[in-house]
Amino acid sequence: MQRLGFIGLGLMGKPMARNLLRAGYRLTVHNRSRAPVEELVAEGAEPAWSPKEVAEASDVVITCLPDAPDVETVALGPEGIIEGAHSGLIFVDMSTIAPPAARRIARRLSEAGIPMLDAPVSGGDVGAREATLSIMVGGPRSVFETCLPIFQAMGKRITYVGESGAGQIAKACNQTIVAGTMAVIAEALVLAAKSGVDPGRVLEAIQGGAAHSWALEMRAPRLLRRQMAPGFKAQMQYKDLRIIAETGQAAGVPMPVTAVVRELYAAMVAAGRGGLDHSAIVTVLEDLAGVQVRSDHPTDGSEEAT
Amino acid sequence: MQRLGFIGLGLMGKPMARNLLRAGYRLTVHNRSRAPVEELVAEGAEPAWSPKEVAEASDVVITCLPDAPDVETVALGPEGIIEGAHSGLIFVDMSTIAPPAARRIARRLSEAGIPMLDAPVSGGDVGAREATLSIMVGGPRSVFETCLPIFQAMGKRITYVGESGAGQIAKACNQTIVAGTMAVIAEALVLAAKSGVDPGRVLEAIQGGAAHSWALEMRAPRLLRRQMAPGFKAQMQYKDLRIIAETGQAAGVPMPVTAVVRELYAAMVAAGRGGLDHSAIVTVLEDLAGVQVRSDHPTDGSEEAT
Repeated sequence: MQRLGFIGLGLMGKPMARNLLRAGYRLTVHNRSRAPVEELVAEGAEPAWSPKEVAEASDVVITCLPDAPDVETVALGPEGIIEGAHSGLIFVDMSTIAPPAARRIARRLSEAGIPMLDAPVSGGDVGAREATLSIMVGGPRSVFETCLPIFQAMGKRITYVGESGAGQIAKACNQTIVAGTMAVIAEALVLAAKSGVDPGRVLEAIQGGAAHSWALEMRAPRLLRRQMAPGFKAQMQYKDLRIIAETGQAAGVPMPVTAVVRELYAAMVAAGRGGLDHSAIVTVLEDLAGVQVRSDHPTDGSEEAT
Repeated sequence: MQRLGFIGLGLMGKPMARNLLRAGYRLTVHNRSRAPVEELVAEGAEPAWSPKEVAEASDVVITCLPDAPDVETVALGPEGIIEGAHSGLIFVDMSTIAPPAARRIARRLSEAGIPMLDAPVSGGDVGAREATLSIMVGGPRSVFETCLPIFQAMGKRITYVGESGAGQIAKACNQTIVAGTMAVIAEALVLAAKSGVDPGRVLEAIQGGAAHSWALEMRAPRLLRRQMAPGFKAQMQYKDLRIIAETGQAAGVPMPVTAVVRELYAAMVAAGRGGLDHSAIVTVLEDLAGVQVRSDHPTDGSEEAT
């Protein structure tokens, strides 16, 4: 069994690291703040004081960080993973960052003899806790195969998508669809409400047909009860939409619908609602239309997270 | 058992009428062209030479027509249903038309003593044939209850949404979500393809998660095999988007995302592709990006229609 390192013990990273411990891996951990390190050390992990130290103690170093600059600093900066390079070391970044950034970091590490996988996840904090994440992987296939048992300790649907950056491309596609679906559901609910029709009845009528989606089943009913706690924060969705825009620009892909969706999330964050669940994009449409989506017949919605 | 009339024996109407015959109803039929009338007469229906004649022979007259002007003519025009008014007559319009038009026709008929339900359907020609349509109903609740067994002979999920026009509002919401979901899936697939990643792998990676939808499961895999035959024609989706825009305008609901989706369908129809399936909206994005979505790993997609 490989010796593993984990850097970035946040909402996602901590439960993912814990699942690696539970699977029996030797684990060295590092985090900017101290508390989650101590928590995992109490459960059997070793602490390290820098990414470099983590790398020196590990065969595979995993990161789960907020954005590309964080990954860049941890991987390539002073006291970074690159300074702990040794034969056999593999780097796996499970953050969601822009595909071009992932490819750039992979190139730099490759020059230092460290192969890298980009392996962003979907499934939210619930998926992280229950080891049911979807993991989308880009990078050398042989490295993917070496790391597959590690992924299996954290997730369920694990897909090799293609070369370096392909995992991040898949995640960008995923988030394009997630955000867009939320936005059109929001427009539909507001249309129903302001037309004087109970949105709960409308949901009941359209569930299970061609309009069916995860968002319609899991999020729309919660909105009708005004439940907007995250889940997946709108400000993270907005960050992902920025990544998507960069990705589209880099590839030469106009994305007119997604561009409008992004501006709606910009409005939501500007209104100070970035901490709400991304499904609460409905509030932006409500403000535009001057109406509130409520129902006398809210159907059931799961508490499962994105 | 009520005596039924059916006007509009098209792609949807003919199999719906046939299911009423099979359920044992006495059925009088009328259609602009002759062939489908003769077909149903051979199966036991009675022919009629005008909507008025249908009304005179029926307790409940059902229409399934292309658009509001057709319904208006059949219901209110010369030799129309209104001229065959008699005690107990009910009118059920199962076309997809603008909610304000549905309300206007209902008011006019109500003055002549004919109660009306708006009862648009979702589920496509397959749903019409197999009697698995979703039916969304607006109008007086007691009339809905009277007609429920008739709906049950044609559909599966039958929902009373609310007062006159509420069925059409629900259908507009349904189509808002269907069209929007198709459009963002198209943008995602083109993003993957032009980024040099196999869209089939991306689909495999994101299926079943937060991006999941009917469209992603049933249509995206067909697109990867360049299967774009309808299903549900893009020109009908575009018509529905016009209805949605009218509905939003009437209610005072800005729908920025749906507006862009509508313009993409406008481009598709302008390019002479209105006869393709609505999922082929991907071709518009392909043209914009100068790339074609194909996969070496197309996953399975059902042949089921919208």
